[in-house]
Amino acid sequence: MPYSKTDETAINTIRTLAVDATFAANSGHPGAPMGMAPVAHVLFNKFMTFNPKNPDWLNRDRFVLSNGHGCMLQYALLHLFGYALSIDDLKHFRQVDSITPGHPEAHDTPGIEVTTGPLGQGVANAVGLAVAQAHTAAVFNKPGYDLVSNYTYCFFGDGCMMEGIASEACSAAGHLQLGNLICIYDDNHISIDGDIKCAFTEDVSKRFEAYGWHVQHVDDGDNDLEAIEAAIAKAKEVKDKPSMIKLRTTIGYGSKLEGTGGVHGNPLKADDVKQLKEKWGFDPEKTFVVPQEVYDMYHKHAAEGAAAEQEWNKLFEKYASEHKDLAADLKRRLAKELPEGWQNKLPSYKPSDAAIASRKLSETVLEAIHDVLPELMSGSADLTGSNNTRWKNAVDFQPPNLNIGDYSGRYMRYGVREHAMAAMMNGMCAYGTIIPAGGTFLNFVSYAAGAVRLSSLSHQRVIYVATHDSIGLGEDGPTHQPIETLAHFRALPNMMVWRPADGNETSAAYYMALTSKGTPSILALTRQNLPQLEGSTLEKGIKGGYVALEDKEADVTLVSTGSEVSLCLEAVKTLKEQNLKARVVSMPCTEVFDAQPKDYQLSVIPDGIPTMSVEVMTTLGWEKYSHEQFGLNRFGASGPYKKVYEKFEFTPQGIAKRAKLTVDFYKDVKPLRSPVNRAFQQLI
Amino acid sequence: MPYSKTDETAINTIRTLAVDATFAANSGHPGAPMGMAPVAHVLFNKFMTFNPKNPDWLNRDRFVLSNGHGCMLQYALLHLFGYALSIDDLKHFRQVDSITPGHPEAHDTPGIEVTTGPLGQGVANAVGLAVAQAHTAAVFNKPGYDLVSNYTYCFFGDGCMMEGIASEACSAAGHLQLGNLICIYDDNHISIDGDIKCAFTEDVSKRFEAYGWHVQHVDDGDNDLEAIEAAIAKAKEVKDKPSMIKLRTTIGYGSKLEGTGGVHGNPLKADDVKQLKEKWGFDPEKTFVVPQEVYDMYHKHAAEGAAAEQEWNKLFEKYASEHKDLAADLKRRLAKELPEGWQNKLPSYKPSDAAIASRKLSETVLEAIHDVLPELMSGSADLTGSNNTRWKNAVDFQPPNLNIGDYSGRYMRYGVREHAMAAMMNGMCAYGTIIPAGGTFLNFVSYAAGAVRLSSLSHQRVIYVATHDSIGLGEDGPTHQPIETLAHFRALPNMMVWRPADGNETSAAYYMALTSKGTPSILALTRQNLPQLEGSTLEKGIKGGYVALEDKEADVTLVSTGSEVSLCLEAVKTLKEQNLKARVVSMPCTEVFDAQPKDYQLSVIPDGIPTMSVEVMTTLGWEKYSHEQFGLNRFGASGPYKKVYEKFEFTPQGIAKRAKLTVDFYKDVKPLRSPVNRAFQQLI
Repeated sequence: MPYSKTDETAINTIRTLAVDATFAANSGHPGAPMGMAPVAHVLFNKFMTFNPKNPDWLNRDRFVLSNGHGCMLQYALLHLFGYALSIDDLKHFRQVDSITPGHPEAHDTPGIEVTTGPLGQGVANAVGLAVAQAHTAAVFNKPGYDLVSNYTYCFFGDGCMMEGIASEACSAAGHLQLGNLICIYDDNHISIDGDIKCAFTEDVSKRFEAYGWHVQHVDDGDNDLEAIEAAIAKAKEVKDKPSMIKLRTTIGYGSKLEGTGGVHGNPLKADDVKQLKEKWGFDPEKTFVVPQEVYDMYHKHAAEGAAAEQEWNKLFEKYASEHKDLAADLKRRLAKELPEGWQNKLPSYKPSDAAIASRKLSETVLEAIHDVLPELMSGSADLTGSNNTRWKNAVDFQPPNLNIGDYSGRYMRYGVREHAMAAMMNGMCAYGTIIPAGGTFLNFVSYAAGAVRLSSLSHQRVIYVATHDSIGLGEDGPTHQPIETLAHFRALPNMMVWRPADGNETSAAYYMALTSKGTPSILALTRQNLPQLEGSTLEKGIKGGYVALEDKEADVTLVSTGSEVSLCLEAVKTLKEQNLKARVVSMPCTEVFDAQPKDYQLSVIPDGIPTMSVEVMTTLGWEKYSHEQFGLNRFGASGPYKKVYEKFEFTPQGIAKRAKLTVDFYKDVKPLRSPVNRAFQQLI
Repeated sequence: MPYSKTDETAINTIRTLAVDATFAANSGHPGAPMGMAPVAHVLFNKFMTFNPKNPDWLNRDRFVLSNGHGCMLQYALLHLFGYALSIDDLKHFRQVDSITPGHPEAHDTPGIEVTTGPLGQGVANAVGLAVAQAHTAAVFNKPGYDLVSNYTYCFFGDGCMMEGIASEACSAAGHLQLGNLICIYDDNHISIDGDIKCAFTEDVSKRFEAYGWHVQHVDDGDNDLEAIEAAIAKAKEVKDKPSMIKLRTTIGYGSKLEGTGGVHGNPLKADDVKQLKEKWGFDPEKTFVVPQEVYDMYHKHAAEGAAAEQEWNKLFEKYASEHKDLAADLKRRLAKELPEGWQNKLPSYKPSDAAIASRKLSETVLEAIHDVLPELMSGSADLTGSNNTRWKNAVDFQPPNLNIGDYSGRYMRYGVREHAMAAMMNGMCAYGTIIPAGGTFLNFVSYAAGAVRLSSLSHQRVIYVATHDSIGLGEDGPTHQPIETLAHFRALPNMMVWRPADGNETSAAYYMALTSKGTPSILALTRQNLPQLEGSTLEKGIKGGYVALEDKEADVTLVSTGSEVSLCLEAVKTLKEQNLKARVVSMPCTEVFDAQPKDYQLSVIPDGIPTMSVEVMTTLGWEKYSHEQFGLNRFGASGPYKKVYEKFEFTPQGIAKRAKLTVDFYKDVKPLRSPVNRAFQQLI
């Protein structure tokens, strides 16, 4: 299809909007939008189907800008096609409280699918979106009803290609044969340090072929719109492999500094702006100009997208009459609602029940609920047998031709790829039909920290099943024993960190993780067995902290989590022998406890007596809930777990000794206030 | 060279030691040692030069077991060759306080070069060791003095190959043309989840070719010792590329379960142990048996290594007479001593000096000291201009044929590879002649968390130059603004987290980072300008915390770090208008402050008045040093930094308002103790 002058004008409009917005903000990255405007134009206007008036339509094509610093490209497109993003929003690029922040944020801006900017995340999100599409299609499509058929498109640059997370995700995508994924590599030879020849001289195409991708090259990404179109069309035809199109572009195309690092992360100079506007027939005195023909062209495409959604809605209506249950299930998932009564499947325990490791308790939950929660997709980063993440009759999510599963499968073999697993889960969740849960050792959630942070920032309901949660993992030793990890993630906003002490608390953790629609969770679970507590129930657990053992005459409160709660209960007996009375609080999730009313908090951690925290890792942060802290501010040790606990005095005696010192130390302080009393409210 | 029966016996001895040790521990990974015993035997006995009596000899060949879970392989070798690791140590495999922990730890076990186990780390460490070798050779070798000529050998498995950090590091190694690096890929088709075909079907060899590596295959790694030898010999000849040898092995070779996941992470059953000992001519009733001929063979090789070191020592003596300064420099570096008087080069500042961003202050330090500290190698993960990590006349560390630097260069272009950068720095430091410093944004140090943790655990003197340390980075927005990051790394044992408030504190941070031989540092530095404080000096700064503004009649202490210290000083004036007196403490490094005597700590954060912390990120952890905390327990915002600070009330007024609430809140508490008073000592 021949391209017209209007196409050229549209491309230059995208470029000038990016130039004007970065110039107005005196900040931002004009180079990538200027270089990628042609491919963006072809992709959005010729290939992608979407309805700007309903950015949530399920079967829309997904677009991910993995090189998120180039977000003015995306903001310009969203505006031009008619999403709820005005020209004023473009003028407020990178200003406080705008919907056009410095990097794209899914939660705040209509039309942004996932939050990108931290390099490599977007392409891994795109793999997750493609997984979700393949799975949703496999589950819901029926003969005559190709309900779920969208593609996922992703742009990425050299920066993304250097990041390990992208390598992990692209290797996984090749294995999974995700033919619905089409990635365009902005091969502009420039990164922040200048020419990539100073650090990055590998053969990227060959690498992607090694991953099992279909690879094409377009030599002139600045001008050859026909070649771009042909490559994308070809990529859509390849059904059994993800596609990568290596597109040679000129960063900052049109600028006097085009092709150099000077246009990467700095606005253009005034005279440079002037010359390019003149060159492209724009009035150099005006800013944020959109020729009407450009709006017309893009709004026409948007209207076609809206019509496509109408067609789809009709198809879905018909589908709903023929496949009533499936249609209801899909609707429910898209509304983020869980099936009524699902929570009745959560196991509950009595104190007389056997001691069980919380990783096993977690497995029991998954076994119990997977039937009633079809949107739950579990998985592990190659630790299935250790994380206990797989229910017995689970089918693996696999390309069918490997004969070890199919795309309707709900168990993901992520491989030893923790960071990609987390980012893929963010993408899977963002698709709208899946709640992903993925396992690794708690210590290795740190490998995924970059993506875990974005789970929180972009409000994704994903669940990290983090087993082997402390020195209690024993023999594997300090390289595998978390010390700093819980503090790290407790400090992360919008993250629930759960460390259940028994079966009922494990059920509580899952209840909250699954019902909190915009908050991810980390479940820190033991390798070793834990007794079922006397006072625990799901109802108490979901308050985040509760009194596990009350004593109205107590001298001290012990507040603890996970495997140490039962040690504290033992320590109460030891203290009794010393004529000291103690009460015990189990605090499986501090973030949820923080959300309780103050009077409840004070009933749990009361005024008048000192509180000592007991958790077998860093004490950092426990000062918030206790006067004194017993923890482990050093690395652990390799050995059988009971010996390791003994070495560090995490025994009833070791706890009692410190509790007594705590009582003595606070005898003279009046009034002795509970640490939950604060002089002022925190900003949240 | 033909292989004899003794070679076979040696290989089976390694295998049976691994089997016996894991059986005795009832824990550990026998499969990899059994599969890799042949290549280990050939490598150690035919190729590697080392002296077990002096594991610190500079020119020894380095060995890294990246699949560290197979550490019984390495422990067996260390024992058999005569390192200070006894048969009893093998018997105490994975026991508390042994030197044979569950994964190899460099700091505790003679002959272990780097701490591995967390997958992918070892191979990235190996790249760092190879960088260090190439650099050290380029600096110190002279005609007739091939002083530094060792190779770095690394074993890795499928798990490492799936990890993104390994992809990053191997891409970097290819770019850097590290011909001194030889890696052997244990291609056994098995990972914890079973056959790797469930997750990992890429063409690894092709990927390494894409990285620019020399790649060979050995089809029968279980038996074909000649082919193994030939491949390693060939790899040594390839001088301009790193080498990868893909070695097909059988995991758990000899076991009834060989070739399956069953031998990966579980000890063999008793009957299985019996059958393989019988098969190999070992007495099935005995454990930990080493035939004398095996000791003899290996001790002979060790003696050759000791002789090689003697030769080297003679060469070095001669070198020292001809190249006196260089020899003295090398000796000094190996002793981890800094040149006398180097610290006089550290810049100092007066209050009247201009306000400067601490990232620029850091650059000034590097500019000032790089001449006197030739062991300092700086670098950045593609943020050179933002991290300000490069001194003006720096030469890049690059392969000479690219014409953009050479191997004597002291500036590393790591590419956008934060995780590999950190692990490479661990390897570079472990080599013994380099102090590495590497830059990225503070928020993206989290991408490197897995390797940063190992900097701490393995006592590496590496420096993370972490700029753009808060919402003060402004427009880039929440995706780039750290909230949880400092809490994360403050909770990590053996890590100094510095957040200097001005020039003198920046010098103090570098002073401590460079003189702390076994502790890594993170320097959190601003993008925005900071005024030079009235009361700051290097001497005060190196205490970690000090009184920046004293008032003996103060109503409140404000404790703060970095960019917020000057805001606190302004807030004192605002408070004065409200008839409140405040004193200000600058606390650039809590870990160093913790190491000060208690009376000093109390002079800084005294009894009797309340303390409020002020830091523009998570409050978590500040309860340790303050009664109340002003921070940011939510994500930031995109906008000019002053606007962002205002949005969150990080202004003199916002601070003063909360300080007043703090004073009021604690009026009635008697005695009001400083939070540095504790009821008992923490375990460290």
